Amino acid sequence: MSTARRATSQRWIDLGEQQREAVARAVVDLVSEGRVPLKVAELADRAGITRPTLYKYFPTLGAAVLHTAQTLLAELDQYVRPRLPKHANARELLLARFEVSFRYARSKPEMTRFFSYYDFAFRRSGLSNDENAVRGAISHSAGHPFIDLFKTGQTEGSIDPDLQPDVTFLAMVTSMTGTAQRLLVEDNWTSGTDRRAEGVHQMMIDIWRRKLTPKDAK
Amino acid sequence: MSTARRATSQRWIDLGEQQREAVARAVVDLVSEGRVPLKVAELADRAGITRPTLYKYFPTLGAAVLHTAQTLLAELDQYVRPRLPKHANARELLLARFEVSFRYARSKPEMTRFFSYYDFAFRRSGLSNDENAVRGAISHSAGHPFIDLFKTGQTEGSIDPDLQPDVTFLAMVTSMTGTAQRLLVEDNWTSGTDRRAEGVHQMMIDIWRRKLTPKDAK
Repeated sequence: MSTARRATSQRWIDLGEQQREAVARAVVDLVSEGRVPLKVAELADRAGITRPTLYKYFPTLGAAVLHTAQTLLAELDQYVRPRLPKHANARELLLARFEVSFRYARSKPEMTRFFSYYDFAFRRSGLSNDENAVRGAISHSAGHPFIDLFKTGQTEGSIDPDLQPDVTFLAMVTSMTGTAQRLLVEDNWTSGTDRRAEGVHQMMIDIWRRKLTPKDAK
Repeated sequence: MSTARRATSQRWIDLGEQQREAVARAVVDLVSEGRVPLKVAELADRAGITRPTLYKYFPTLGAAVLHTAQTLLAELDQYVRPRLPKHANARELLLARFEVSFRYARSKPEMTRFFSYYDFAFRRSGLSNDENAVRGAISHSAGHPFIDLFKTGQTEGSIDPDLQPDVTFLAMVTSMTGTAQRLLVEDNWTSGTDRRAEGVHQMMIDIWRRKLTPKDAK
């Protein structure tokens, strides 16, 4: 390929990336504004592209929403990784993952709103079987670092080896995630990003630190 | 009023109640089947009434959904009350409320699905300001027995009086409710009603019993 042609095709790839990115942004904005259910026309409009261009990248609305989930999870991971403690046991690394993720989520409530909509409304009606399999894989891969730390913790002894791994891990993930999601809807009590929300999150971290720590270390 | 007229008007009241009840049933069924967003025509059809009849009872879709929330909460309360322990302190009564509610919710996953849709999708776009105020009041009154038990527990000493009431109560409610909701979407791990879900719920009850119990009683 000539240099000129290579430059041209690189420009097309960049444009494609930008437009896919703009679609993910638009999905998050529309969901955050409560403009649900998502409509393809509105989504294209918000992303600044035409419907045919949108369909060029995403054959279905489900594909666009899955891409949004992946984009947000990648951004979260990029934020979290460099902020984890350098020298810590697996239990503290696991708790730190929840803490740093929550800090990020508090600064971007629209991310949590997107995932609440995705988990509790969109995926129940908006995904084909194939797309749902992709969704399962995305969720599995996002959970991977957490489950790995849990297993390592039980092996190295920073997490009580007597705790039944599947139930304990599931209780931790569902309660931490469920709490973060509900803090954004308990509007009789909290804005979801105020000091009370922070206090609730800290209490959950403390509770789990106590539960995970082996009995002889307590 | 003559006896005959009274009987006739009673029949109308009963019919009205039956039809309002059928609408609540239809909302729950449609949400549970993932047939969201709800559409008035589909709702009337499922409830076996005409659109004008539906509008006679509920001026808006929001009103129908709020009625559904109230109906489900009343049914839950009716199930829970007679199943609470007769002689127990406020802490154990509070924990029992969560336990019995979860038992009911496991046998009726469609109730939790409805509230997940209501909390995380519908209310963000489907309610007028007035309706949203009604929603706040419904949620406040459903939380009332829980907050009362928490306060009583701190006064009588079955709940650690050193715990900050607002943060602790909110952490308990958001984590218990959030966990119950997420157990129905963590389908890589659980059906939401299997033994693993039961184990997660039991672990959360144990964790909160330990957290609430005053230190000198531990």
